[in-house]
Amino acid sequence: MRHDGRAMDALRDVQIEKDYLIHPEGSVLITVGNTKVICTASVEDRVPPFLRGSGKGWVTAEYSMLPRATGQRTQREASKGKIGGRTMEIQRLIGRALRAVIDLEALGERTIWIDCDVIQADGGTRTASITGAFVAMALATEGIAEKKKLKSFPIHQYLAATSVGKSEEGELILDLNYIEDSSAAVDMNVVMTSAGEFVELQGTGEESTFNRKEMNGLLDLAENGIHQLIDLQKQALGPICDLIESKEEAAQ
Amino acid sequence: MRHDGRAMDALRDVQIEKDYLIHPEGSVLITVGNTKVICTASVEDRVPPFLRGSGKGWVTAEYSMLPRATGQRTQREASKGKIGGRTMEIQRLIGRALRAVIDLEALGERTIWIDCDVIQADGGTRTASITGAFVAMALATEGIAEKKKLKSFPIHQYLAATSVGKSEEGELILDLNYIEDSSAAVDMNVVMTSAGEFVELQGTGEESTFNRKEMNGLLDLAENGIHQLIDLQKQALGPICDLIESKEEAAQ
Amino acid sequence: MRHDGRAMDALRDVQIEKDYLIHPEGSVLITVGNTKVICTASVEDRVPPFLRGSGKGWVTAEYSMLPRATGQRTQREASKGKIGGRTMEIQRLIGRALRAVIDLEALGERTIWIDCDVIQADGGTRTASITGAFVAMALATEGIAEKKKLKSFPIHQYLAATSVGKSEEGELILDLNYIEDSSAAVDMNVVMTSAGEFVELQGTGEESTFNRKEMNGLLDLAENGIHQLIDLQKQALGPICDLIESKEEAAQ
Amino acid sequence: MRHDGRAMDALRDVQIEKDYLIHPEGSVLITVGNTKVICTASVEDRVPPFLRGSGKGWVTAEYSMLPRATGQRTQREASKGKIGGRTMEIQRLIGRALRAVIDLEALGERTIWIDCDVIQADGGTRTASITGAFVAMALATEGIAEKKKLKSFPIHQYLAATSVGKSEEGELILDLNYIEDSSAAVDMNVVMTSAGEFVELQGTGEESTFNRKEMNGLLDLAENGIHQLIDLQKQALGPICDLIESKEEAAQ
Amino acid sequence: MRHDGRAMDALRDVQIEKDYLIHPEGSVLITVGNTKVICTASVEDRVPPFLRGSGKGWVTAEYSMLPRATGQRTQREASKGKIGGRTMEIQRLIGRALRAVIDLEALGERTIWIDCDVIQADGGTRTASITGAFVAMALATEGIAEKKKLKSFPIHQYLAATSVGKSEEGELILDLNYIEDSSAAVDMNVVMTSAGEFVELQGTGEESTFNRKEMNGLLDLAENGIHQLIDLQKQALGPICDLIESKEEAAQ
Amino acid sequence: MRHDGRAMDALRDVQIEKDYLIHPEGSVLITVGNTKVICTASVEDRVPPFLRGSGKGWVTAEYSMLPRATGQRTQREASKGKIGGRTMEIQRLIGRALRAVIDLEALGERTIWIDCDVIQADGGTRTASITGAFVAMALATEGIAEKKKLKSFPIHQYLAATSVGKSEEGELILDLNYIEDSSAAVDMNVVMTSAGEFVELQGTGEESTFNRKEMNGLLDLAENGIHQLIDLQKQALGPICDLIESKEEAAQ
Repeated sequence: MRHDGRAMDALRDVQIEKDYLIHPEGSVLITVGNTKVICTASVEDRVPPFLRGSGKGWVTAEYSMLPRATGQRTQREASKGKIGGRTMEIQRLIGRALRAVIDLEALGERTIWIDCDVIQADGGTRTASITGAFVAMALATEGIAEKKKLKSFPIHQYLAATSVGKSEEGELILDLNYIEDSSAAVDMNVVMTSAGEFVELQGTGEESTFNRKEMNGLLDLAENGIHQLIDLQKQALGPICDLIESKEEAAQ
Repeated sequence: MRHDGRAMDALRDVQIEKDYLIHPEGSVLITVGNTKVICTASVEDRVPPFLRGSGKGWVTAEYSMLPRATGQRTQREASKGKIGGRTMEIQRLIGRALRAVIDLEALGERTIWIDCDVIQADGGTRTASITGAFVAMALATEGIAEKKKLKSFPIHQYLAATSVGKSEEGELILDLNYIEDSSAAVDMNVVMTSAGEFVELQGTGEESTFNRKEMNGLLDLAENGIHQLIDLQKQALGPICDLIESKEEAAQ
Repeated sequence: MRHDGRAMDALRDVQIEKDYLIHPEGSVLITVGNTKVICTASVEDRVPPFLRGSGKGWVTAEYSMLPRATGQRTQREASKGKIGGRTMEIQRLIGRALRAVIDLEALGERTIWIDCDVIQADGGTRTASITGAFVAMALATEGIAEKKKLKSFPIHQYLAATSVGKSEEGELILDLNYIEDSSAAVDMNVVMTSAGEFVELQGTGEESTFNRKEMNGLLDLAENGIHQLIDLQKQALGPICDLIESKEEAAQ
Repeated sequence: MRHDGRAMDALRDVQIEKDYLIHPEGSVLITVGNTKVICTASVEDRVPPFLRGSGKGWVTAEYSMLPRATGQRTQREASKGKIGGRTMEIQRLIGRALRAVIDLEALGERTIWIDCDVIQADGGTRTASITGAFVAMALATEGIAEKKKLKSFPIHQYLAATSVGKSEEGELILDLNYIEDSSAAVDMNVVMTSAGEFVELQGTGEESTFNRKEMNGLLDLAENGIHQLIDLQKQALGPICDLIESKEEAAQ
Repeated sequence: MRHDGRAMDALRDVQIEKDYLIHPEGSVLITVGNTKVICTASVEDRVPPFLRGSGKGWVTAEYSMLPRATGQRTQREASKGKIGGRTMEIQRLIGRALRAVIDLEALGERTIWIDCDVIQADGGTRTASITGAFVAMALATEGIAEKKKLKSFPIHQYLAATSVGKSEEGELILDLNYIEDSSAAVDMNVVMTSAGEFVELQGTGEESTFNRKEMNGLLDLAENGIHQLIDLQKQALGPICDLIESKEEAAQ
Repeated sequence: MRHDGRAMDALRDVQIEKDYLIHPEGSVLITVGNTKVICTASVEDRVPPFLRGSGKGWVTAEYSMLPRATGQRTQREASKGKIGGRTMEIQRLIGRALRAVIDLEALGERTIWIDCDVIQADGGTRTASITGAFVAMALATEGIAEKKKLKSFPIHQYLAATSVGKSEEGELILDLNYIEDSSAAVDMNVVMTSAGEFVELQGTGEESTFNRKEMNGLLDLAENGIHQLIDLQKQALGPICDLIESKEEAAQ
């Protein structure tokens, strides 16, 4: 058993509270154990220069932590005057992942800005951000569709993410919290669709390595966790699920 | 009556939820109408260079808004690479205000970092930040005191803040929300102690001016609002009030 | 009596030397005791993006100190690569104050850039900047008017500023120099028009507080000082006074 | 066959020219097809603050492209004043990968700075950087060992990297050049040791997804390519191979 | 004759007003025609890291222009967040030039900070800065000597600078003002000592070239101008001249 | 004789390898002793704002060193977030020098971007950059001419640069390497055309001075070295020489 009493293959308690804020077109507070992230989706009727006139839309993401989301206060990136490498990596990952399940042509020349702000961190903030941001993006997209601005609903699959890893003791575990993550020999983030296909796979041996068999064990754990997360997304999204699923079927 | 149905001299609905986050030494979610601010207080056993060896402590504040705290998404200051003038002004104000009610010698060579992160904005974010930050600071200070690290409790008064203003129509009003603030001819932020003394007074005619009589009317409104806010702080702080009040009496 | 021999309610010696530089549309060297500020006004036939096409003009200000304006050399903000909070606060204040006495529609789609460069500092640099900048702005505006580019003269009132404070010993004093400012318990900057109305009021208890009675005493001192400063502005402006005063009367 | 005539499972022509520069402790020019990267390793007798006094060393990497390494000139990051997200991601990856095959305790309190400067780019610059940087690191480490400053040789395995991907047409291919990379549906970077274990695995569906079977096909291709690259590293390293291999055996 | 009535070999009217400001250890307002520069010298009892423990001192310079020193307002470098190439070049030149005439060992472990702030520009700001800064440096150095902190006076020669150039019409001219400088085919800045030796020589053909004979003609003009400038420095320095001259003789 | 065995008036071994990279319109690897610089010329069909619509083109340069071009690793300017003064000075010099031998009107509204990246440094990097950049610029210009986009060939003279100096022992020497440069009493960079005219002349006494006679000796050395460098440029350029020389004759 794990230090918080979970089975090796158990997710932490997950909650997705939709419409958490009044201003954004889509917003969610996602809670995964003690990790809490506010995910918002903002719609802008413009695209970046490289897409102007292309008829295609764009999805981009920004990620940040409140200074005291963590055990020790961390300095704000605004105070430092620059964004760190870890933040850059995460926000590029979130944007790339979401773009895999939305048809940018069907979105039209619009940008969806995703903001993931971690208000409390206990491991898995990037995967919680992706899981929550998917819901925020779907809410915002539904808002555009409602105003009859879209020919067809652009989101064609569900998307969620979790982490898996190999503990110091060599156990394969699902959904690492901060203590587990800090001591893990191998750490892997998996982003997967409702069709069970990978969008991103990032496995890292932390001053360590892993073999093909371990990798397969980790992917089995991840796949199982992601199916549970997608079920929770469906509960949060309610009637919007029909829009996604009809698109999903159309694609098959 | 005002557009949201309030009387001229009425505060919006205010809630102070203490211990909102698990990591910080003190934390609060303050809600003033639709304005919501997470205020945290972090204790560090060091002081800035100009105080080293002085035996005195320090309180400093940082303020930020989530990009989608507002109706339109605003660009992150971390992305811009610099902190704007408005943010600088506000965080200097918060720090200065809090330092007026804490005995920095009694605090000893420690820094209390205040972080005010606005997750939803509807006017009055700087005054909500001060009112919430006072409670976070008191919680963190109590934590230090509990570990018997302080000879005497350093906070000697309550401190809260509100805004008052003159509307376009010339009415004097308390606790302006965003719509009122945007159109006000005069806008005044008042920071006051439980003894009814001013700590900060910042009145601005927005392409307009105000006379002495109007100023006095505004201060009456503010004083009344601040007493109500201090009552709510007391409810949130519970037994910590005894520590502050015994200090308050000692000072008289 | 004060350490420099002044009465409590006495200004320091003030001089306003107009047309100090050859290039700017308006320029002034203002001397307040040992504080010396070069104030210039530059006219640009463009406005910031948020005003384009509105028919309205803009006034904006920048403030800086030479590195050796002060007793200890201070590092240049250009070398640091960013503008500090105090500078931001001051330049926002100067711009806001000046905009209160100029009719931006009458100015037309032009920007007046105010630059206040402190070449020697001995307290009161922000209030000297406002008092001097008003004269520079009036000179530059007269220059536009002379070229018959304006339907009516846009400046409708005089504007000046001074500081007042409560000394360590509890005395209320006018026009604090650096030594007085450093030790003052309360420090208040007052910006006022020739009509005796407030434009800005910023009172700060420096790790201290102040009550309503003290505030009223401070405002009396400030009002008296500002009337003297406006008289000096009138002497410097000479015939331009007629333009302002006819506008002033028209507004009544 | 591929547009440059290669078989699906063929690497491009690879050359590793060691001691390319006279100043660095270790240096290499690695050529992979038209991609050319100068990799240097510099030894410093200090470690970052978080390791001081720990007895452990550190390996860190920086990556950059000359402005005209690419078909279109790209602006220098020094001119922009900040390092982009892609660069950050790559340099973090290179450092992490190298740290997996060096015993930081055996290295002692020293930092090895890796610099990878791309002078010509045609796809695969990050994997060429890792493959070349491993050789530069080994050369520099041998230099320290030669001066009898190390108890045992710290590098315990070879390390190389390549890219694999799924082409637009659905073919699985090894070592993508720029044209293939730009149009690939799936792109995977694999970093592997001489023992055949993974250090990093980063698979990305570019607005696309991939399934488990495809992933396994890609990993087979990568493993085969990496073995060839390690053979080339061995030729370049010559007698230093004995040091690595005796360490490798000791670890088994 | 030149457009301002000067002979080809005539300097503009030059004034050096010493002790212009109250705070700096040395200060000067130098006026060369319409060019006006405030030069200050500040003494700090520390040296940069590369000189610590060496027993040697340092002289370094910073240069800036007020935004409205020029005909068109220029943006502040503090607002841009970085110092431009021209400023860098000039401040490096000023520091290097001054270090040629001061014995850094005799100065001891102190830094003299030179600040040259151009309040009005009409060509020749860098050479006026050097000529004025020399006087400010001598005043500050005398202040240190007076406190008996120096074994011997460290300045061993006078130093001044001027510009020469070839006009569009091919005439060789001394001390170019802004209009002449803008149209000159060749522009040369010459820094020279009282012994008639060169410290810096920077000749530039502006989209043009110059031959050896022209160069010699320009140097004759410059030498003549610099002797006049050194006479003016001597008048400003008064009794300090004895200190420099006894050092000058000792060096011969 | 000099420490590397050269005569006082001897250049180091110089090689100019043209078309060194596949992407740029013009590229060169220039080797001067141990100094190696990659010079590229990139053609862009746009000009900076101040030239738009003028019919004239522009040439601008950037200069950088790889971190380990030097004996000690130097921090990247991209990591520091700003470009240093020395770099700025050098890149301004390179651009200015090249613009003296190209007819910007004949170039038309195009920008030639010159990039000089030092991969190995042993003194004389700025003069090697100019000598190499001239060749890269000529190659790129020939490429434009070949596409019949130019009425006449815009380069009308050859241009090369070298350094000369006075050693510690007072000897006048040509083409200083790093050791000589570090200890030289006087250091002079000379940029000259094939017609034997100066474009730039920058002589600096490094905490030292020099007289007119020494200056003349240095210029004789430089002129001799530059003629040799231009011969090597001609060998590299081959048939492009005819284009330059016919232009050169036309100009006489």
